[in-house]
Amino acid sequence: MNTSPVRFGLIGTGRIGQVHAATIAANPDAELTGVADVMVDAARATAQRYGGRATADPVELIRSGDVDAVVIASPTPTHVDLIEAAVEASVPVLCEKPIDLDLARVDALWPQVQAAGVPVALGFNRRFDPAFASVQARVAAGEIGELEQLSIVSRDPSAPPAEYVGVSGGIFRDMSIHDLDMARFFLPDIVEVSATGSQMFDAGARQHGDFDTAVITLRASSGALVSITNSRHSAVGYDQRLEAFGARGMLQVANAPTSLVSLSTASVVEARPPYQEFFLERYAEAYAAEIAAFICRVRGEESASPSYTDGRAALLLADAAQRSAREGIAVPVDLRAGVGSGVS
Amino acid sequence: MNTSPVRFGLIGTGRIGQVHAATIAANPDAELTGVADVMVDAARATAQRYGGRATADPVELIRSGDVDAVVIASPTPTHVDLIEAAVEASVPVLCEKPIDLDLARVDALWPQVQAAGVPVALGFNRRFDPAFASVQARVAAGEIGELEQLSIVSRDPSAPPAEYVGVSGGIFRDMSIHDLDMARFFLPDIVEVSATGSQMFDAGARQHGDFDTAVITLRASSGALVSITNSRHSAVGYDQRLEAFGARGMLQVANAPTSLVSLSTASVVEARPPYQEFFLERYAEAYAAEIAAFICRVRGEESASPSYTDGRAALLLADAAQRSAREGIAVPVDLRAGVGSGVS
Amino acid sequence: MNTSPVRFGLIGTGRIGQVHAATIAANPDAELTGVADVMVDAARATAQRYGGRATADPVELIRSGDVDAVVIASPTPTHVDLIEAAVEASVPVLCEKPIDLDLARVDALWPQVQAAGVPVALGFNRRFDPAFASVQARVAAGEIGELEQLSIVSRDPSAPPAEYVGVSGGIFRDMSIHDLDMARFFLPDIVEVSATGSQMFDAGARQHGDFDTAVITLRASSGALVSITNSRHSAVGYDQRLEAFGARGMLQVANAPTSLVSLSTASVVEARPPYQEFFLERYAEAYAAEIAAFICRVRGEESASPSYTDGRAALLLADAAQRSAREGIAVPVDLRAGVGSGVS
Amino acid sequence: MNTSPVRFGLIGTGRIGQVHAATIAANPDAELTGVADVMVDAARATAQRYGGRATADPVELIRSGDVDAVVIASPTPTHVDLIEAAVEASVPVLCEKPIDLDLARVDALWPQVQAAGVPVALGFNRRFDPAFASVQARVAAGEIGELEQLSIVSRDPSAPPAEYVGVSGGIFRDMSIHDLDMARFFLPDIVEVSATGSQMFDAGARQHGDFDTAVITLRASSGALVSITNSRHSAVGYDQRLEAFGARGMLQVANAPTSLVSLSTASVVEARPPYQEFFLERYAEAYAAEIAAFICRVRGEESASPSYTDGRAALLLADAAQRSAREGIAVPVDLRAGVGSGVS
Repeated sequence: MNTSPVRFGLIGTGRIGQVHAATIAANPDAELTGVADVMVDAARATAQRYGGRATADPVELIRSGDVDAVVIASPTPTHVDLIEAAVEASVPVLCEKPIDLDLARVDALWPQVQAAGVPVALGFNRRFDPAFASVQARVAAGEIGELEQLSIVSRDPSAPPAEYVGVSGGIFRDMSIHDLDMARFFLPDIVEVSATGSQMFDAGARQHGDFDTAVITLRASSGALVSITNSRHSAVGYDQRLEAFGARGMLQVANAPTSLVSLSTASVVEARPPYQEFFLERYAEAYAAEIAAFICRVRGEESASPSYTDGRAALLLADAAQRSAREGIAVPVDLRAGVGSGVS
Repeated sequence: MNTSPVRFGLIGTGRIGQVHAATIAANPDAELTGVADVMVDAARATAQRYGGRATADPVELIRSGDVDAVVIASPTPTHVDLIEAAVEASVPVLCEKPIDLDLARVDALWPQVQAAGVPVALGFNRRFDPAFASVQARVAAGEIGELEQLSIVSRDPSAPPAEYVGVSGGIFRDMSIHDLDMARFFLPDIVEVSATGSQMFDAGARQHGDFDTAVITLRASSGALVSITNSRHSAVGYDQRLEAFGARGMLQVANAPTSLVSLSTASVVEARPPYQEFFLERYAEAYAAEIAAFICRVRGEESASPSYTDGRAALLLADAAQRSAREGIAVPVDLRAGVGSGVS
Repeated sequence: MNTSPVRFGLIGTGRIGQVHAATIAANPDAELTGVADVMVDAARATAQRYGGRATADPVELIRSGDVDAVVIASPTPTHVDLIEAAVEASVPVLCEKPIDLDLARVDALWPQVQAAGVPVALGFNRRFDPAFASVQARVAAGEIGELEQLSIVSRDPSAPPAEYVGVSGGIFRDMSIHDLDMARFFLPDIVEVSATGSQMFDAGARQHGDFDTAVITLRASSGALVSITNSRHSAVGYDQRLEAFGARGMLQVANAPTSLVSLSTASVVEARPPYQEFFLERYAEAYAAEIAAFICRVRGEESASPSYTDGRAALLLADAAQRSAREGIAVPVDLRAGVGSGVS
Repeated sequence: MNTSPVRFGLIGTGRIGQVHAATIAANPDAELTGVADVMVDAARATAQRYGGRATADPVELIRSGDVDAVVIASPTPTHVDLIEAAVEASVPVLCEKPIDLDLARVDALWPQVQAAGVPVALGFNRRFDPAFASVQARVAAGEIGELEQLSIVSRDPSAPPAEYVGVSGGIFRDMSIHDLDMARFFLPDIVEVSATGSQMFDAGARQHGDFDTAVITLRASSGALVSITNSRHSAVGYDQRLEAFGARGMLQVANAPTSLVSLSTASVVEARPPYQEFFLERYAEAYAAEIAAFICRVRGEESASPSYTDGRAALLLADAAQRSAREGIAVPVDLRAGVGSGVS
């Protein structure tokens, strides 16, 4: 298996499924051999474009022997069952976040995942962004001394449809979860979560009792503090910034410009066009690196793929943020205590 | 009094007192006619350089009839008594922050201040910084739509001496108080305070049970959220940034460069020298504008000087931050309820 | 021919030939059907990777009927003969710059090119760079008023081998020619050329009597002035900037950053990693757009491909720059007078 | 004379005279003891504001014994006679540029200046700008290796009145002269001048046969090339940039921002307000440092003040630029040959 391309099955052909299909097709170490979607026409269209056979039944695909690994990009409620099917069939899994909206289900699956010993990786794509990855590596290498504060700004260009908000699990589990994992990329051992949410502009959030605007503060066991700033919209485009502040300096990740051109006139100088629209453009390189890292994991090589327990930890932090925002308390968490515990 | 220069008395000749002396001397609408300091030699040196007579007794100066207004720049514990003396003598006051470390004393003085009707302004100099002031005005004018999030980064270059930490009232009352007032400059009606503090590097903070690293989240009655990031040190120099995020755009205040020069080599490009060292340089223009605004206040003209109740509000928020950080709860506050109430 | 992919023949498989092969292979409207190189093993390796059959004989490929168009990326001395063969065979050509180092040969071929009416495009890839193209379009649309000054900085990362310098035709014909065409992209009608060259650092330039450092000033018929700054090396990486200065404002193209990350410490702030290494990275998008535009040209659709006369004009300006630098005079040119004339 | 303030006489009270008056008044090592202007009311107003007695007769002031040094800020045609009067009276001079529009007059005065041994400094204020001065010092210290190219952009916000253009001596002697001196600040030994001028927008330039747009190329004896880009107007405000390109890196001076604030919206990001309006703001610090350096010169201490021969050299280069632009030739110059020679 070490030199021939990894045969991939793709489950789910929505927006993110398309990204994975294109990424797999473009990677010389991978090929797309199967595509599953309950809407079989969508599966067929994707298979036709990027390769493989189409099926409406993901479990059949997993068990077929046609695939060396699967990418799960179907709706969240299907994730746990599909991971279970995959580990039973000894097929390595790259699953989109979150594992599930219910931590109990995540914990219930854990013994099986652990016993199977099959690679289960979580789709926290931002860890593979060249900018974030390089800052994390430089911080880890001690370039700015001890990390004291980590500030993450993460704002989507516009709020999702109201119906999606209703099933999303709320802003913390749906959107902040990426930032909570990013915090753990730098500071894995988070011990306390405080969050404040607000309804400022989005009718969907109001309708479903969710927040559209939020701030989360995390404390790590080292004492380092993390500040996450979220919004469901951003007039200036996808807003994705990070600042690592250490004892000896600061590393910052700026927004990605869409052009090298700036305009100066009598009224403004050095004005540039807006930032990249959304994650497909902003994180294109990250998705490619994510698949590449997962292939390493599948082949038993060294790999930076985040694990099932990373997926669980991010969900646990999101739950704690939700509770903190609702109850007005700082919520202690214990990520070291293992699955089944953690929120005191 | 409208056209002749305002005769100023200065009380306290430490670092900030020197700034006020120089600023008053340089303002054509003001003159320094008296300087008081318990260390009378220091008073004399300042008077010699910037004008006026020297005295060891500030109350004598206030009551002498030689001054149309006083600036109180003496240690915090003296503020309340000196304000009281000034309003009794009908002498307008510009008092350095905080009014006092004890909210009860601040409230106790209020009826007298209110009854006297003498201008009492608080030294929140950052409101007068051209960058912050322009962003506040542009936000107020609706340039970026409704204000949804305000992010303030405020880091001092290095921690104060341990003995100062012990009497400072803690990071929230001593340092964050400027940022809490800045938050109220944009969003006067704060209704909730959450804070998280940490001891990361400063022996003085550890010794006195204080924090050297902190994050504060405020909620305004509009629902807007404020995020304040504080540190007692910063390797890169004085770090003073602000971002106002609104429905239609974003206004940002960058750190002040010390040079127009950048260096590019084989290893880095566009590298610039460090930021300004500290507040005397960074806020030089702000101090001048603060005195100018206070002169308007003294003359009964329109003025942006923050008031005694602004000083009280910032202290109340600092107290709430302290309580939140200690107890792990979000603290509701009511600034509209008037003096004597506010922390539930 | 309008909907099936254009069948491409590639002549020359060096560094730039590889770029074209990859670009053609990646374009859904194109396919690589033939590769010619006198070193037939190189042709075979390229054909194996990107498609098509290999041959040592480019003329055979042109005449074979297997190709709808050819890209000429072989050494400069072969260009004229190969263009001639292609237009004789009615095969559209995209030819790398320069057409030839000898203007007389370029002019001698012109009647045949003109008579044949076959598209002959020149490989001035920078016209297709998104940044330069957008500035040109915005200037043309009047966004900054009349164009008064155009400043181009163009520095290669490091000097070519001495033997290459000897056959390159000199810095003006080899390197500046891109910038001279860029000038004509904005201001086609150049009427005067002044150039100053210097030998500062490169042993190859000294050995062959060439310059390694140069400044060129052009005057357009509108009166607008163009300033070109060239160097054969640049410690900071590939330096490619442009500034269009007009009556109402200025549009600038900055160097392409390689990362969104910046570092701030006690000695520098906002330092970023070096610029992109060289043209393959910097102009990757431009090469793709160049092929796309040429495909439009082949299909008889609207196209921005620079023409044979654009190629001739750039060479004529390079010759004039060479003469100006050698003789210390401003050289008048007349690009409107047509082939055979032009340098007075 | 070493410790008491230098008693200054100011000749000329126009725009630049006002700057010098204010600068002298603000310098603790200087005092303004006399002000001369043929419009004696103007002299009186200035004297009243900044100190000293007023007179209509500059020569009387020079000879009065009331002044230790004079600043000549009167119209250019008066400079030579006033310098002569000052050196005769052994009064050190700081003279605004240019010494005269006629190189012959400058050379004729030279023997007297040389014989007198009285300090005569030229008002090339930009040498004292902190940014330019620091780049020059860093280049001289070898930070970027050998200097290979120096690029200077210098554009005034708007063209002067037509009548001024008529007596200004032309753009090279009036405006570029500052940039020519800046070139010599880095590369004193210029050996060749090429210039191209154009009439693009200014009616005054057209009326008087002058240029409003120009590019100058200089060659230094080291082989280094200098490129100067000038315009009589700039929609974006005063445009004053410099780039020193060396073997090991690049130092750049950016335009001076007027604010730390940037705006991002759906149509532009990071847009800042226009640059500083004009030289009084941009070079405020430079004027103060210029006077300070001149005081050192007056006191016989080490001083960076540019000399009479620096003033002559800049004028000679301006003359050569004028001739080059008119005649279309590169003009060799020899600044080492001494006064009376230089333009071959």
